[in-house]
Amino acid sequence: MSRPKPIEYADASPQVRAVLDDIRQSRKVDDVNNFWKYLANDPALLKRTWESVKEVMAEGALNPLVKEMLYVAVSVTNGCQYCIASHTASARKAGMTDDMFGELMAVVGMANETNRLVNGYRVPIDEAYEK
Amino acid sequence: MSRPKPIEYADASPQVRAVLDDIRQSRKVDDVNNFWKYLANDPALLKRTWESVKEVMAEGALNPLVKEMLYVAVSVTNGCQYCIASHTASARKAGMTDDMFGELMAVVGMANETNRLVNGYRVPIDEAYEK
Amino acid sequence: MSRPKPIEYADASPQVRAVLDDIRQSRKVDDVNNFWKYLANDPALLKRTWESVKEVMAEGALNPLVKEMLYVAVSVTNGCQYCIASHTASARKAGMTDDMFGELMAVVGMANETNRLVNGYRVPIDEAYEK
Amino acid sequence: MSRPKPIEYADASPQVRAVLDDIRQSRKVDDVNNFWKYLANDPALLKRTWESVKEVMAEGALNPLVKEMLYVAVSVTNGCQYCIASHTASARKAGMTDDMFGELMAVVGMANETNRLVNGYRVPIDEAYEK
Amino acid sequence: MSRPKPIEYADASPQVRAVLDDIRQSRKVDDVNNFWKYLANDPALLKRTWESVKEVMAEGALNPLVKEMLYVAVSVTNGCQYCIASHTASARKAGMTDDMFGELMAVVGMANETNRLVNGYRVPIDEAYEK
Amino acid sequence: MSRPKPIEYADASPQVRAVLDDIRQSRKVDDVNNFWKYLANDPALLKRTWESVKEVMAEGALNPLVKEMLYVAVSVTNGCQYCIASHTASARKAGMTDDMFGELMAVVGMANETNRLVNGYRVPIDEAYEK
Repeated sequence: MSRPKPIEYADASPQVRAVLDDIRQSRKVDDVNNFWKYLANDPALLKRTWESVKEVMAEGALNPLVKEMLYVAVSVTNGCQYCIASHTASARKAGMTDDMFGELMAVVGMANETNRLVNGYRVPIDEAYEK
Repeated sequence: MSRPKPIEYADASPQVRAVLDDIRQSRKVDDVNNFWKYLANDPALLKRTWESVKEVMAEGALNPLVKEMLYVAVSVTNGCQYCIASHTASARKAGMTDDMFGELMAVVGMANETNRLVNGYRVPIDEAYEK
Repeated sequence: MSRPKPIEYADASPQVRAVLDDIRQSRKVDDVNNFWKYLANDPALLKRTWESVKEVMAEGALNPLVKEMLYVAVSVTNGCQYCIASHTASARKAGMTDDMFGELMAVVGMANETNRLVNGYRVPIDEAYEK
Repeated sequence: MSRPKPIEYADASPQVRAVLDDIRQSRKVDDVNNFWKYLANDPALLKRTWESVKEVMAEGALNPLVKEMLYVAVSVTNGCQYCIASHTASARKAGMTDDMFGELMAVVGMANETNRLVNGYRVPIDEAYEK
Repeated sequence: MSRPKPIEYADASPQVRAVLDDIRQSRKVDDVNNFWKYLANDPALLKRTWESVKEVMAEGALNPLVKEMLYVAVSVTNGCQYCIASHTASARKAGMTDDMFGELMAVVGMANETNRLVNGYRVPIDEAYEK
Repeated sequence: MSRPKPIEYADASPQVRAVLDDIRQSRKVDDVNNFWKYLANDPALLKRTWESVKEVMAEGALNPLVKEMLYVAVSVTNGCQYCIASHTASARKAGMTDDMFGELMAVVGMANETNRLVNGYRVPIDEAYEK
């Protein structure tokens, strides 16, 4: 066997159940999405990742909607299909409208284009940006 | 000669000057940053890129600060040093505080990590995300 | 027709069969995996790639298990689904345990995160690393 | 000001100093490398990243040398200059010989090549890898 | 709903239909491929993207076949499955033979390998290339 | 010491000199560029890489100019500064004009943009492309 399998709640150790319970309560969902069921193969990774995500994605100087859109921007750039699907769903839940999604895509597309124009034209950093 | 050289305003054709003038007026700056001076080697590219950037980065359903932070997120993911420097500066100008920058970095770092956990654990997309 | 098709052994030229035979004997398998059947569309590429893989992945200063895990690390970072699947299987065959897989994923995730923190914070290289 | 600046120990808050002290003691070094001085701009990120790195990079099912080489493999794939420099140095300290480095590079190069051959030839995943 | 849906011609606004009509006429096809049906969710993006693609991919100093192969090279490097499929088809239509495809793949694979060897060996740029 | 150092011809082993001599004669240059001097740290890698490059980049179904532009397209996408510099120089030597370079950049930028629009809009592959 080489393909990892999901760990369902019923089969999880108490340590894993504690994390899954916290995810379900924090997000007010009946079941967690596949990502967490796969990370559950490594209880320490599951715990560390969930605690970091909870801390990083919380309301702060940036609101959760902006944070979810940043997550989508990274995932689209990397081409992670699962991550695009799950974080677009989270952004929708946090209030992303169709127009916002359209502008998000336009910015991400444009940034990926100009990143390469900069590379190809070998543009040196302006002194003003070094301060 | 293989390394592209910047085109300074004084040496630019009228077609290029028209674009550079529009950038300077739109952004209320005395001189444009290096990116535009290098694109000026290809007047059609310069014009098309500037018109797209002006349209895409304008106030809309998302505000310019959010858009600049999305640009930084993409540029950091791609490792484009010039783009990170210039769009961090633009985000600062648009109001990004130190706390916002810190949270932006934390989200981008986390997203790049979980994108790879998803890849490595080969997590299948939840049915709910397909709708 | 634009999608490449696999070349099965029965339909292969003598030149291609010689490479497929060597793969089967070296790996003690009855049939080669899809990767080689597709590369067989270009006999020179097939031969060059197999000879390089055989040389690079052999026991040396690093053992085959470590080399397969390095292959997985690269493939996860690039998001190559086929490569993740095939090299995880090879690493399993070379002795990778569940705990090793868990730690491999944790390191790859962490490295992808800190690579981007370095980019975003624009960390300059310490002098000590230049020697 | 848009470019982040390093936080030196003398100017650090007690919370940041506690982390820097732990890094220095764990690694038996007089001063930390630039990465940590820049992360110190965000004390929560500094603490979370250090605790994760300490846990993830510790001796486990994989030894620290293998982990550092995995880190280098990811960093080379992403083109993160700082990360390549710092983790190559760490791998050297953990015992990486010239021959090991040579083989590490060869595997990483080969993996990046075959990842793209798989993409371009659109190779479907063998059934055996789905189990 | 979070997954974008295609906009079919029958359901499209006049503004969108005008672009779809131009694509069909320029390419002499009865229906456009999925890419355009999805971009049609954002009429401004659809229009801007089509106009740029039409301008950029036209016969110029480089012919359309070379341009389509460059598109494939980028898409293979990024691992964009859809883009590899669609631009390989376009390259075939523009005259790409099996031998050309084979050489294209070989160059793209090799470039991705040597890009990483350069990163890992930290090769400094020769003075001659700076001119 | 952790940073690799270049091997100059005068200090090279006979095995390495044989490869360096072949590069100099094939390319009609007095000295090889830095890439080869660094690979010379691993004579087997040097030999294998040079032989592959010589075979892959030779005149074939595609001419050397097209191949060098494909190399630049990959290197720009990956952000490999050295590779962009060296292969732009090679493309120039092979006849790339300013107009060709401009179109090359435009295509690479556009492809990187539309690759991400495809990802973000989650465009499914048209049936026609599966044949």
